[in-house]
Amino acid sequence: MALNPQYEDIGKGFVQQYYAIFDDPANRANVVNFYSATDSFMTFEGHQIQGAPKILEKVQSLSFQKISRVITTVDSQPTFDGGVLINVLGRLQCDDDPPHAYSQVFVLKANAGSFFVAHDIFRLNIHDTA
Amino acid sequence: MALNPQYEDIGKGFVQQYYAIFDDPANRANVVNFYSATDSFMTFEGHQIQGAPKILEKVQSLSFQKISRVITTVDSQPTFDGGVLINVLGRLQCDDDPPHAYSQVFVLKANAGSFFVAHDIFRLNIHDTA
Repeated sequence: MALNPQYEDIGKGFVQQYYAIFDDPANRANVVNFYSATDSFMTFEGHQIQGAPKILEKVQSLSFQKISRVITTVDSQPTFDGGVLINVLGRLQCDDDPPHAYSQVFVLKANAGSFFVAHDIFRLNIHDTA
Repeated sequence: MALNPQYEDIGKGFVQQYYAIFDDPANRANVVNFYSATDSFMTFEGHQIQGAPKILEKVQSLSFQKISRVITTVDSQPTFDGGVLINVLGRLQCDDDPPHAYSQVFVLKANAGSFFVAHDIFRLNIHDTA
């Protein structure tokens, strides 16, 4: 499979679509539809899980309701198997918590004319002061 | 090719090795050896280039000498083609500039018993205040 020349639009479109679902508490569990039953990895704050059922469990365990999110940058690259690598930097605020910078990496893999999230790494950008 | 069970060690080892070379001004240009002549993408602060010759040009154009770097987190995931996806969060200080948080994503691809960097996305974490 070749490089997808639309990688930039696919990356930006996916990020918009994904967060629109994730940030809506009534709809959040539906992000599970972006993942494969077996071939998706999620690393959430250093904790790694594999497959849609465990990812759904993780998403449903999140205790906050409201998320306010501001995207700072979305960098996308095409992969040689027709997918897209995406790096998102932004800031988010959950309920009444203080706002935090965060980074989230996605790898979208092409499958039957669509994409699924093969890799997802989420981290709040909290740095030790040294 | 299958998942590489050593992905965690490979990710951590690569990050250490890569930055040891990059952060040494006398040695910095040698990071080019981690990239493929044609099949590597680098996005540096939103500017995307492809292939080792252009990546070398970019690295050689960087004007700072000294880098002080503190790694905060390294999250790695295995990819189904035997590679490793790595997300690094850290802080760095170039010469006498103020220190900045940054994120860098690497995708290592397996090739003939070794790895090359197929994808590299670097961003300073500078967020607009809204």
